[in-house]
Amino acid sequence: MSLWYDETFRDNTRLGLRVTRTLYSGKSDYQKVEIFETEAFGRVLAIDGVFMTSERDEFLYHEMLVHPAMTTAKQAKRVLVIGGGDGGTVREVLRHKSADSVLMIEIDQQVVEACKEHLPTIGSAWTDPRLEVRFADGIDYVKTSNDPPFDVILIDGTDPIGPGEVLFDIDFYRGCKRMLAPHGVLALQSETPLLFEEAFFETQRKLKTLFEHVHPYFGPVPIYASGYWSWTWASDAANPIDADASRVEQISAGTRYYNSDIHRSAFALPNYVREKL
Amino acid sequence: MSLWYDETFRDNTRLGLRVTRTLYSGKSDYQKVEIFETEAFGRVLAIDGVFMTSERDEFLYHEMLVHPAMTTAKQAKRVLVIGGGDGGTVREVLRHKSADSVLMIEIDQQVVEACKEHLPTIGSAWTDPRLEVRFADGIDYVKTSNDPPFDVILIDGTDPIGPGEVLFDIDFYRGCKRMLAPHGVLALQSETPLLFEEAFFETQRKLKTLFEHVHPYFGPVPIYASGYWSWTWASDAANPIDADASRVEQISAGTRYYNSDIHRSAFALPNYVREKL
Repeated sequence: MSLWYDETFRDNTRLGLRVTRTLYSGKSDYQKVEIFETEAFGRVLAIDGVFMTSERDEFLYHEMLVHPAMTTAKQAKRVLVIGGGDGGTVREVLRHKSADSVLMIEIDQQVVEACKEHLPTIGSAWTDPRLEVRFADGIDYVKTSNDPPFDVILIDGTDPIGPGEVLFDIDFYRGCKRMLAPHGVLALQSETPLLFEEAFFETQRKLKTLFEHVHPYFGPVPIYASGYWSWTWASDAANPIDADASRVEQISAGTRYYNSDIHRSAFALPNYVREKL
Repeated sequence: MSLWYDETFRDNTRLGLRVTRTLYSGKSDYQKVEIFETEAFGRVLAIDGVFMTSERDEFLYHEMLVHPAMTTAKQAKRVLVIGGGDGGTVREVLRHKSADSVLMIEIDQQVVEACKEHLPTIGSAWTDPRLEVRFADGIDYVKTSNDPPFDVILIDGTDPIGPGEVLFDIDFYRGCKRMLAPHGVLALQSETPLLFEEAFFETQRKLKTLFEHVHPYFGPVPIYASGYWSWTWASDAANPIDADASRVEQISAGTRYYNSDIHRSAFALPNYVREKL
């Protein structure tokens, strides 16, 4: 017999997945970590009861977090990923030939260990020699590190509730800017403007105090609240639409969602968003 | 105390809304009709247990079904709507100054009566003198009518399960083509390629046997399965991107989602769709 696992949003909406098997359930120093098998979405990672990624729809989220930034930064050699414990983000980064050094800072080693064991198709690039994984606090890192700046910084955190909240803090964004090369691009997940309107618009406002160009973009992610997600592209130098054609072509040969049309289209602003920006 | 109302898709995924009050519950000759108040989405219409529309997100669905067709048909004076009992589709059609005669064929009068009473903000154009509502079988109508052809035909039906199934039948599409002017445009909701892949691709294949140009397009609808929906634009004559600028401008002044950027962007094809078309 299979059971339902429900994620409840704002106590008034819920998404349920039928679970056939629990693969992992543990409590780390930071959060509750669960991995289970579902009928509809394959294996799913949930953190503190919130669906983080699934085998079936993870390509949407990871491709859209990574490729718009990686194809528009003036160069995309040195890349920093904050969070992203399932490994999907670094996998997509490492598909870029331009990436020659990728540093991932993840606070929770237990998430990475569990995902390595149970979500091997998502984190399929852990052994890439260009990747360094450090288990550390990303906020401390961007505020204090003396490492050279990065061309691209990607924030792949949880929601602004619980331990992920600090990843939506302006001080953290300021730290990211400190670690970003002058021509660099920052991209992050920025919630859904349809159900979590405040989180979305607040993120836009904070980033605008720090970056000259801040552009939200949109795409589907069925296991996230509303099914419609946003990411935000922020930079002082580049234009989010003006992607490097050869990088887009290289990467689009292997993507399932992203391509040059999707890249441009994702930045189209619905009227209800445009009015409030 | 409020209760959850869950819609289950394919027996393996469910979306639940917290309901504060039931406004209407009845069994028509065709289907079970319910309207209730929810905390997250305002008032919601469900037919046979499937969420059809909500006050909060109906603008997304109705704007996207209507405006791409209405702005690209060579002219958009005579419009036929099949289904659409909540009145949101005809409301959007009637916002076009070009529309001077709109015929809506809805099989279930009880849906319209219930929506008129309980969803007045969605069906806010019932008294427009350009609108004629007939309670009849849309399939019979398109196969047998001697009315003059239409510039735009919009199919606003339920899912291809139960009484709505015939609205996904090739004979029905053939009837629509029969009633469409040579320069006309047909648009319809075509399910989600992310969860209902077969229904989506099957619809594309059927329409391609009848129309020279068939283009699916995409957008968010949080209360539908996966949150990411598709519509399909079909015509022998026009190009879906080449919209009439003055019509787009007129209509975009009052839309909450649709505008010229969204119109163009909605037609961008993800790689996983492009490969299978």
